[in-house]
Amino acid sequence: MYVIAVYDVAAERTGKMLRLCRQHLHWIQNSVFEGELTAVGLRELEIEAEKIMDLSYDSLIIFTNTHVHRVERRIIGREKQEIDQFL
Amino acid sequence: MYVIAVYDVAAERTGKMLRLCRQHLHWIQNSVFEGELTAVGLRELEIEAEKIMDLSYDSLIIFTNTHVHRVERRIIGREKQEIDQFL
Repeated sequence: MYVIAVYDVAAERTGKMLRLCRQHLHWIQNSVFEGELTAVGLRELEIEAEKIMDLSYDSLIIFTNTHVHRVERRIIGREKQEIDQFL
Repeated sequence: MYVIAVYDVAAERTGKMLRLCRQHLHWIQNSVFEGELTAVGLRELEIEAEKIMDLSYDSLIIFTNTHVHRVERRIIGREKQEIDQFL
């Protein structure tokens, strides 16, 4: 399934969340990631995220589209993604 | 159509982008917005955003799902949205 993940976590946890999300998805901007995951892969991401996060403070939003119709994506302005290779 | 918008703009432009996006969509986290828009409504948002943005530096990503199958959304941790009423 197609997944978009967006996190908002305290500064001390952003490094770990960035590494975790990049193991499963593609970084596209700020704390925004996208990619294709199986249900098992998504569950793994969620479980690992819950270990990192302070669930009373941090937030991770996961958008999924299980149907064949993909979400279309348009970028206005600069594509930050190409910087990703240097991060 | 269902729309998710995520922006990454220079600090001096975040105020204007926040106000613009909140006129068209619902704030859900950081610089992340979602909602239902017509094609005309989405085009208006894009045109206004282009006026605000430095297109060589800033980035606005727009995800759209034109099909009846909505994108599902799950939140892990705190729902930041309810704070929106106080912003």
